[in-house]
Parts: sequence; C-alpha cells; structure tokens
Amino acid sequence: MEQKLYAIVDGGSIVTPKGFKAAGLHCGLKKTDRHDLGAIVCDVAATAAAVYTTNAVQAAPLQVTRESLRSGKLRAIVVNSGNANACTGKQGLEDAYVMRSSAAEQFDVAEDDVAVASTGVIGELLPMDRVTSGITGLPARLSGDAEGAEAFSQAILTTDLVKKEACVTVKVNGVDVTIGGAAKGSGMIHPNMATMLGFVTTDAAIDQEALQQLLRDTTNTTFNMITVDGDTSTNDMLIAMASGLAGNEPLTPAHADWEAFAAGFHDVCRVLAMAIARDGEGASKLIEVRVKGAECDEDAQAIAKTVIGSSLVKSAMFGADANWGRIIAAVGRAGRPVNPETVDIHIGPIHVLEQSRPVPFDEEAALAYLQGSMVEIDVDLHIGSGCATAWGCDLTYDYVRINAAYRT
Amino acid sequence: MEQKLYAIVDGGSIVTPKGFKAAGLHCGLKKTDRHDLGAIVCDVAATAAAVYTTNAVQAAPLQVTRESLRSGKLRAIVVNSGNANACTGKQGLEDAYVMRSSAAEQFDVAEDDVAVASTGVIGELLPMDRVTSGITGLPARLSGDAEGAEAFSQAILTTDLVKKEACVTVKVNGVDVTIGGAAKGSGMIHPNMATMLGFVTTDAAIDQEALQQLLRDTTNTTFNMITVDGDTSTNDMLIAMASGLAGNEPLTPAHADWEAFAAGFHDVCRVLAMAIARDGEGASKLIEVRVKGAECDEDAQAIAKTVIGSSLVKSAMFGADANWGRIIAAVGRAGRPVNPETVDIHIGPIHVLEQSRPVPFDEEAALAYLQGSMVEIDVDLHIGSGCATAWGCDLTYDYVRINAAYRT
Repeated sequence: MEQKLYAIVDGGSIVTPKGFKAAGLHCGLKKTDRHDLGAIVCDVAATAAAVYTTNAVQAAPLQVTRESLRSGKLRAIVVNSGNANACTGKQGLEDAYVMRSSAAEQFDVAEDDVAVASTGVIGELLPMDRVTSGITGLPARLSGDAEGAEAFSQAILTTDLVKKEACVTVKVNGVDVTIGGAAKGSGMIHPNMATMLGFVTTDAAIDQEALQQLLRDTTNTTFNMITVDGDTSTNDMLIAMASGLAGNEPLTPAHADWEAFAAGFHDVCRVLAMAIARDGEGASKLIEVRVKGAECDEDAQAIAKTVIGSSLVKSAMFGADANWGRIIAAVGRAGRPVNPETVDIHIGPIHVLEQSRPVPFDEEAALAYLQGSMVEIDVDLHIGSGCATAWGCDLTYDYVRINAAYRT
Repeated sequence: MEQKLYAIVDGGSIVTPKGFKAAGLHCGLKKTDRHDLGAIVCDVAATAAAVYTTNAVQAAPLQVTRESLRSGKLRAIVVNSGNANACTGKQGLEDAYVMRSSAAEQFDVAEDDVAVASTGVIGELLPMDRVTSGITGLPARLSGDAEGAEAFSQAILTTDLVKKEACVTVKVNGVDVTIGGAAKGSGMIHPNMATMLGFVTTDAAIDQEALQQLLRDTTNTTFNMITVDGDTSTNDMLIAMASGLAGNEPLTPAHADWEAFAAGFHDVCRVLAMAIARDGEGASKLIEVRVKGAECDEDAQAIAKTVIGSSLVKSAMFGADANWGRIIAAVGRAGRPVNPETVDIHIGPIHVLEQSRPVPFDEEAALAYLQGSMVEIDVDLHIGSGCATAWGCDLTYDYVRINAAYRT
C-alpha cells in the first residue's frame, strides 16, 4: 500500500458515516459521575456483523446479541459500562433481554434489531432500575454530531484513560464511503476472535456475508494482535453496522473498489486496536513488535504475541532497559519453528542481536530511545517469509496498583 | 497417601544421601560478594537423568550436559550463577566445555562425567578467567556436611531471596534410602519439561531408565506446575544423581518399594517447586490452585496453570481482593472443556461461586484470609474426574521494580 487507498478523517467518529446517531449518559452504574450508558442508532436497517470472545464463559449480553444478529441486520446497539453482566445466571440473561426490549421501545425498533453489550465488574447483577430509567433518557440525547459520538465513547470506558475513535473515507463507485469506529479496553485484554468492545459504523452498502468475513479477517490482524495482560475477557465483542446510505453499488470481494474499502476498514480497526494497547492499564508506553522471516504468518503472529505478552519484556520496557535476552527467550518459547542461530533483533534503530549473537551497542542511545512513548521491536528469524505485527504496552507499578484494588 | 510412605528429614539436603559432597564460593560473577560458583560431587559413578527446557533457544551448558548424560552416569555437576551463558554463540559453547574440563580436572574424573549448568543474565560471555580460577578453589571446599550444601545452595541463587532445599528418607528392602534436593528460580519461571535449576541426589540404587522416567513424570506434576511470570527460560534444567550406596536392590517400577521411593522423590520435587513459587520475584504470598472435576488431568493442569498465570488474578491476590470474576474468566479462556453453568470456586474456606452463580460472602472474612501468606483457590468444574494442582505467587510492585532494572 505505497499509495493509500483511503483518507483519514480528522475528528471523525462513529456518527460520521451517513445514517448514524449516538448518545451517552450517566445512569448510576459507575461510582463516579462518568457516563456509563450509551447507544448507537441507525436511521435504517443496517447490515450487521459481529465477532465474539472465545472465552468458554461468555457474558449474558453476548447471548442476546448473537440472537439479534441472526437476521444480519441491526438498528441499534445499547451498551453499559461498570458492570459486565457476566456470571449472573438466569437473572443476568433476563436483564440483558430487558435492556434490549427497553432500548427497542425507546428507539421504536424491533427487539431483534437491537444488540446489547456490557463491560465492567464480573458477577454482580445489574441494578436494572437505573439501567431502564437511563435508557429512557437516551432518545433525547441521540445526536449525529460530534457530541453524540463523544458521549458514547465516554460511556463505554472502564479503567480506560482516553476514548478510542477512528474514521476514514474511501471512494467506492466514485462516491465517498465513510467508516468510523469506537472501542474500549484497558485491562483483561488478550483478545482472541474479538476485542473488548468495538463498534464500527459505515455508510457503505455491503453484502452481509462479505461484511462478516471482512470483520473476521480484519480482527485477526488488528484486535487479535494486541495484548495488555494475557487475560481474555468474558465480554469481548466487535460489531460492525453498515447503513448503505452512501449510495455505492453493494460491496463484495468482487467489487472493483473492494480492496480500497477493506484497506480503510482495516485501518479503522488497527487504529482502535493500537489505541487500546497504548491505553493498557498502567501503561507508560506503546510497544509494537514486528516479526518477519517466520515460516508462515501464523507462526509470526504467535511469536509476536508471545514477545508482546512477556511480563519480563514488558517490565524491561518500563525500565527503559534494552534487555534483548528476554526478547529472544520469548521468541524461543512461543512453540513455533525458530532457528536459534539466525535471529536478528532491533530495538528501535538499535541493532542488538545479529544471527543470534549480541551486537555491542551504545547503552545511552538505547536508554534515550526506550524512554520515549513508543517502542518498536523488530525480530527477523531468517527462515521464511511469514510476518506479523503485534501491539502491547509496558508493565508498570500502576498496572499492579490498578488491579490490586479494582473492585474496591 | 493417607499413610506416608516416606519420612521428611529435617535439615536434610543434597549431601544427606550417601556419597555426595557439595561446595560453593564467590568467583566474581555477581557484583555482590554472594556465592556464584558451586559443585556437587559423588564418590562413585552415579546413575543420572535430566530434563531440560522446551525453549527453542537453549543455553550452551545444556548442550554440554546432554552430551555428558548420554552415558547415563555422572560424577559431578558444576554450576555458576550471575551469567546464563545463553545466546553466546560458539565462544559460549567453548566456554561451557572449558567449565566442564576444568571441573573434571579438579575433581579427577572424566570430562563426560561432569554436567554443567548456568543461570543469570542472557547474552554476555562468561569471564572465563574468574570461572576457571574459581573452579580450582572448589575441591578444597567440598564437604559432606551441611555447610557444603549450604554453600552450594547459595551459589545457585540469582534474584532468589532464600535457598530451596528438601530431603526425605524411604525404606527400600528394609534399608534407609535418602533423597535430597536443591533448586533455584525466582523469575522467568514457567517451566515446561524442566525447571530453572534443580538438583536431586539419592543414595538409592536405581535403574537408569526408571530414574529418567520417574524424573520426567514427577516434573510434570511438580516443577511443570509452577509459574511466576509465564516466561520459560533458556536454561532450565533438572538433574538427578543416584549413588547406589544405600545398599538396596536396584529400583525399577517392578520393585516392591517403588511406590514408596517414587512418593518420596515426588515430595522432594514438590517441596522445591513450591519453594520456587513462594520465592517468585517480588512475591508476597504463595498461591495454590487446585482444579478438580475436569474431563481429564491434562485439562485440569491447563486450567490450573491458566489461573495461576493470570496477571489479573495475581494482582487481585496481592490486593487481598476476592475477585473471583477473574478466576472464572481465566478458567474460561484456558481452551479446555468447561461447562459455564456448573463451576464452583472456593477461595480458602470461602465459597464464592456455586454452579457458576455468585455466593454472597463476608468480605471482611475474605480480606482477613487473603492477607495471609498463602492463598488456596479451589475450582470444581463438575464435568469429570480430572484434577491437578498448580503453584504461583502474587504480582506485586516489587516484581515490576526487580524486572524494570535487572541488568543495571
């Protein structure tokens, strides 16, 4: 992609694509006065697709959302933060259905046109009086302007410090198609098949199966390539909605502009995924690990995720310590083919290992590089052409502080 | 094992079994004046067995030790700490051979009767003048008394805070057979097929193949069931030496006292493995996770190791927070069969989850329990009879502090 097939929309969001409005408010699930309830609503029946956590223990809203997605269409998504509605048994499932029916009533759409998502503490029942009362306040706040997206983005955060948004525009049949996204996620982040919570909107007309496949493929190289702590949540979900209001001929992989659309879609997801990694609990810096020269892409992915997930590598990055020994140890334990004699490692611009042998380097230059807010680690295995990129963050005192007292 | 088949030897060590001496001294590999070079020597050719790290990147001493072990016999083991001699290329391999030949000369045994082990920083060449000069000081310090074992146990430590020793005695053919052990390990601990460094001595007469198989089986339920940080080292190695001087008829699985010997051997390894977990880098408490009711033992092992390895569970335990949501989330992401409706969880005496539903509990009682130095977590999946136990430690500020500045 020397020439970009899409253009970034500065300040764009989930409401930039035609047909979408969003809202957010505080209904009392969080102890602070931060927003904790939000919705995305589409003016028309949007073509929809979703991917979910692979955790065997799945939260109640996932079951309800799967049911709504059967039709491949959605009109609205209602989301709460502060309470995950996970491990809450039959009552939890009933509560998720009530969230859905309340939202359907308020937005005047069918129940199975509504998806439900929750994030927060596991194992506590939702205070449904607050939730349903909050939902009645959403319609009046729905907005297609930036304020609506802003309120929604705030409403889905838990331990996140910043909102995560992205937006690009692509030419399809000569018309402008826009893709926007919002996500949350900071801890219990090691997505597999899906992310924490992610929402992608577009005004493209697109075939439902094509959208589902694109969402799955894109997830594998974006949200599935980030890790904060190796813990896969019970609530991860990524939903895409396409209003079709841009006026293009429906997209399928056979469409002449499919490649451009897919590239733009990928970029929205990549930006959101990197934003989650950068905002990992307690993180002081973003780490990008690029692996090449593996036997295949899948091996490269496994190795990149092992390096980015290593507590020892993460601690060393926090300490601005160019401790490549931990990087090669992580490469070696990933369980994928590695020639222990041919590994090259760069930490940023600094060559630290060549053909598995230490390269003398300027420790002060390394320290200066590692004290920055982003660290890039390149690993070349020199045994094939497989490559992958993974994102994560450093392991800091703040990660421990945040997680030693999350419930309190 | 209602009736114990073996007796614990208080204050026993690797030199308690007949025929073994040990030594340790400071040769200058550590920046402090702590011991960093040690040896175990047997008066006779000991039947020997070993297991090694599964990391694809293996340190030079492992290659040399594998070569020595081909005969199934050993007379001596020489070990250094402070430098892992890993990722050191041909020079590192030559250095490991020189360690072996120097020790062979000093102990007056054949080169291939000597095993070599190293632990410490990866990627730096050993200062061989200090090592070889140190080795010449070992013979005079060899001792069959407690002081020899003490010096050896100190010499193998890196970030460990305490030495790890264990000893039991078993009746075999009516004679007393003794089994002693020493180990080190504190960080980069997630053994797979072997531990950091572990040494087991016994005066039992035992068939070599039986010893190798026993070592492998025992490792699977002891050293392979601990994790500190999920990182598998390049240097993990566990060696067993049997002098045969107890006077028993050679042990094989067909021997009438095999079960007693295996139980005693298992106990020595379990005590050492638990000691490594308890002394995990920065640990404030030992965590034991017991899983039962899984489809098979292997599933139970995978689930127990996922729970004990979860950064979120580990942080919660540090914070004395009975956050069982993180425990069930870890159970669910282990990739093994779980019925999400039938999980029971106890944290110590406190029942927190029954049939996957939260049980109201006394938060103050939970806090008091979790502030202790050991936490037991019981998970019952209620779908089969597979069970396993894993050990680990909490994730603390000190873990981050230690690993943010290990090299400096």
